[in-house]
Amino acid sequence: MRSWAFSVEVAETVMPDPVDLKDKLAQVTSLWDPKVIAALNDYHFKIARIEGAFVWHSHPDTDEAFMVIDGKLRIELRDGAVELVPGQLYVVPRGVEHRPVAEEPCGILMVEPAGTVNTGDAGGERTRSGDEWI
Amino acid sequence: MRSWAFSVEVAETVMPDPVDLKDKLAQVTSLWDPKVIAALNDYHFKIARIEGAFVWHSHPDTDEAFMVIDGKLRIELRDGAVELVPGQLYVVPRGVEHRPVAEEPCGILMVEPAGTVNTGDAGGERTRSGDEWI
Repeated sequence: MRSWAFSVEVAETVMPDPVDLKDKLAQVTSLWDPKVIAALNDYHFKIARIEGAFVWHSHPDTDEAFMVIDGKLRIELRDGAVELVPGQLYVVPRGVEHRPVAEEPCGILMVEPAGTVNTGDAGGERTRSGDEWI
Repeated sequence: MRSWAFSVEVAETVMPDPVDLKDKLAQVTSLWDPKVIAALNDYHFKIARIEGAFVWHSHPDTDEAFMVIDGKLRIELRDGAVELVPGQLYVVPRGVEHRPVAEEPCGILMVEPAGTVNTGDAGGERTRSGDEWI
């Protein structure tokens, strides 16, 4: 009986997974605790579950972009407020005091430089590093 | 008859408008012609209507983030492809050759440094400056 050694070359087709925002959000168990889901150069896309009111703060060195994945977000500013629902985008300019508020449970997407801290210049016990990936 | 001069101080509540992605997309009339809808420091959020296949190209100096507003986007890579629907995100790393393809009309959101050209290192007649706001 003969035996042959042979190999078959299979064309490998790589299908990288996109990042699914709702799937990622489902993995977040803590509130007001941003998790990184993607990097763009030295910027991070972060998601967070939020409910209630956060602390007033600003980011002196960077703008901060907000989108809503699920629910409704109100970004209070010192002289007004912005209401965001899914499909909408708002950029809080650097140095502008703001306070995110969600009357009901809400999932948000933020884009900002890596290392940007959630409480900005306010600090305090609600500060999270925001550099954990999920 | 007497007359009084008086003034009433009204507390002004500013309600800035968020950027509504579908509203903005409805204003775009050309294909493969990115328009800026928001700035985040020196980065731009851009939207584009696309249909069919774009040119193979890469961006040697920057990553490029893609999301889908409406429809389905396939980002072809030299060794595979990524399929994106609304609610999903994919970042093409700098230097990686890619070709966006939409079998049906599609609306996309991109995030990248201001001044990033749509055709990257490929150039050619489909190049757009990508710095027009809408």
